[in-house]
Amino acid sequence: MNNEKHSHIISRAVCLLPEEEQRIRLDRIRQTLGDKADGILLRDNANIYYTTGRVFSGYVYIPADATRDALYFVKRPNDLEGSGVVMIRKPEDIPGALVERGYPRPATLALELGSMSYQTATRLMAAFGISAPVDGSAAMRAARAVKTAYEQSKLRESGIQQARVYAEIPGMYSRGMTDLELQIAIETTSRLAGCLGQFRVAGDEMELFMGNVLTGENADTPSPYDFAMGGAGQDPSIPVGANGTVIRPGEPVMVDVNGNYTGYMTDMTRCFSDGPVSDLCRKANDCSRAICAALAEMGRPGVEAKALYEKAFEIAKEWGLADNFMGHRSHAGFVGHGVGIEVNELPVIAPRSRDVLQAGNVIALEPKFVLPGIGAAGIENTYIVRPDGPMERITVLDENIVEFEL
Amino acid sequence: MNNEKHSHIISRAVCLLPEEEQRIRLDRIRQTLGDKADGILLRDNANIYYTTGRVFSGYVYIPADATRDALYFVKRPNDLEGSGVVMIRKPEDIPGALVERGYPRPATLALELGSMSYQTATRLMAAFGISAPVDGSAAMRAARAVKTAYEQSKLRESGIQQARVYAEIPGMYSRGMTDLELQIAIETTSRLAGCLGQFRVAGDEMELFMGNVLTGENADTPSPYDFAMGGAGQDPSIPVGANGTVIRPGEPVMVDVNGNYTGYMTDMTRCFSDGPVSDLCRKANDCSRAICAALAEMGRPGVEAKALYEKAFEIAKEWGLADNFMGHRSHAGFVGHGVGIEVNELPVIAPRSRDVLQAGNVIALEPKFVLPGIGAAGIENTYIVRPDGPMERITVLDENIVEFEL
Repeated sequence: MNNEKHSHIISRAVCLLPEEEQRIRLDRIRQTLGDKADGILLRDNANIYYTTGRVFSGYVYIPADATRDALYFVKRPNDLEGSGVVMIRKPEDIPGALVERGYPRPATLALELGSMSYQTATRLMAAFGISAPVDGSAAMRAARAVKTAYEQSKLRESGIQQARVYAEIPGMYSRGMTDLELQIAIETTSRLAGCLGQFRVAGDEMELFMGNVLTGENADTPSPYDFAMGGAGQDPSIPVGANGTVIRPGEPVMVDVNGNYTGYMTDMTRCFSDGPVSDLCRKANDCSRAICAALAEMGRPGVEAKALYEKAFEIAKEWGLADNFMGHRSHAGFVGHGVGIEVNELPVIAPRSRDVLQAGNVIALEPKFVLPGIGAAGIENTYIVRPDGPMERITVLDENIVEFEL
Repeated sequence: MNNEKHSHIISRAVCLLPEEEQRIRLDRIRQTLGDKADGILLRDNANIYYTTGRVFSGYVYIPADATRDALYFVKRPNDLEGSGVVMIRKPEDIPGALVERGYPRPATLALELGSMSYQTATRLMAAFGISAPVDGSAAMRAARAVKTAYEQSKLRESGIQQARVYAEIPGMYSRGMTDLELQIAIETTSRLAGCLGQFRVAGDEMELFMGNVLTGENADTPSPYDFAMGGAGQDPSIPVGANGTVIRPGEPVMVDVNGNYTGYMTDMTRCFSDGPVSDLCRKANDCSRAICAALAEMGRPGVEAKALYEKAFEIAKEWGLADNFMGHRSHAGFVGHGVGIEVNELPVIAPRSRDVLQAGNVIALEPKFVLPGIGAAGIENTYIVRPDGPMERITVLDENIVEFEL
């Protein structure tokens, strides 16, 4: 290969975040990490994206000492540049490269022990000569749970796009359609509207395609995944969501197709129907709306997450829908969760949650009901916790069960 | 909740595989595990699917002692039944449940250390009172690398469906379309043809949506992911594949959209164009075909994977295309890989691979070329290694650069 051929190639900056924005995020990580380690070495794609605004194969090292900059140990791609970029072939290159750059070798090192494989973690521990790693996953989850103004604007933008796609759903239906055909129509419209398709999810058990459409008996099929609702899915290899059920007039169709338009995703659910639904079904949807409204009013900094869950369950009970709340044959153990770069962030709105709401939390609330023999009803919205006043809803669209256009 | 309401509920069998099929797979796992451990505890969704034909949240325990059956420790869903099913709330329940069932407590235990998080692995080690876990990932990868006749038929079926979708691609194009618009049209057609949408990928760095369409300069953009080709993608949060480039007449459009129609996926690439491409582009595609043909002829049990790579590179050099082989600004370090439940299985067809081909391996070969300023050219097929004779191609479709219908 000659040089002339490559003369047009321009390297790309490793960090795509505005300088001030990155500083805020690194400060937040240093704060949640505290004095637990001399530094944190990040490898998880979600955390590399959080700290640089892009994904690369490699590691971001953040020294606890705030007077020192972050370093970027990059395996791939091979065209990144910027202050602090060190190209490596393998993780064993990192400790030596740190010393070469004049950084002290950390005596205690935080790693993402909640997502990093045992093999990778022990390999890094050996490379750094460390016998007991410090968990960095909890600190990263805590840091990312409070969204910056910049992140909030990305989330608002995703919410606007997602609501636009949902507004088109009534026109996508024709009688005789299956849940799966409607889901594919929504997927296509989402993608054409700029949805990135992929949704990141934390934890090594969870798997997620673009989202789910549930109708009829299928809504009551328990799933292995820790989502609010189940469904048998198309195939036992991916057992969640639509299973090819023909949508029947008068039965609710619950749509929960995610909205990742900006690298940050919003979560939103609405129900639709071919003709009017039963009174019970409308009641369940109205109860879900009442819960969302009450929790949005209540959700302020300092409020315990578990108090929100208790309030939701109390309202469901008042409406006589406790047995159907968050499932019927199988019940989900939460009513809401943080969203952002991943679909399951902090805080968790659950009975045993220890989380306390903070300004900047972004929370999806999804009080849903499974009505045996009928289907699922309820809504989901994404909200931002404000410094004062009720939470800001960023998935704005009619919350009634909307009838399909015929 | 009253019982009457639940009387219609029928529990589902934990194992969906024919008994003989499951026996073959468990025997294979015991064989690859050898005497390295008293048992293996599986949690990875791909491995739970391999051993049961379904995915659940929990663990499959396979004792090395072949006279004892596998046990299924299930957290979710709550309606699985069958011999060996034990409902658990947390992994700490497992050791006691083993003893209750009359199973000896393993003194040495294999875990999926390559995919299981450090936190989960250390939690299991503590529960079992084991200080040094045995790696079970390598044994599972080795077992799954040799597909049973049952698995091969699932792969053939995926190949047939994928080829049918690809045959429709020439009719999906209209002039002025972007790479992304074409990709979305292929995604939609795939989904309507039964594609499950989600593709499993091994390793904690890799991320994959439905596949990629590459055209023009974008084909030469290095990606962080360990795929054959790169591309900038739509957004720096998911930096791979189509980036919105308008497809230009005379430039190749490479389509690599995966085919998971059965829980087992085939991998296939073809190129298309609006009008005839340049001689160089056609030459690169012909060279790719020549490499596939030579490797399919050569690929038999006992052949070293690295010999296949060397042959591929030798042919690329003979054709004067060595600088463009598997990339240009950035080069992928392989020409093929196993496929099955996950998109990146064994064997790996790479220069330093120690894999040796076995009958029943299923291998995607993807000798591709990046031509700077033009785009990418080449094909990919999925093959089954037969006991004798050349490999069986299971993605059967015209391998020329096919012109779009206008």
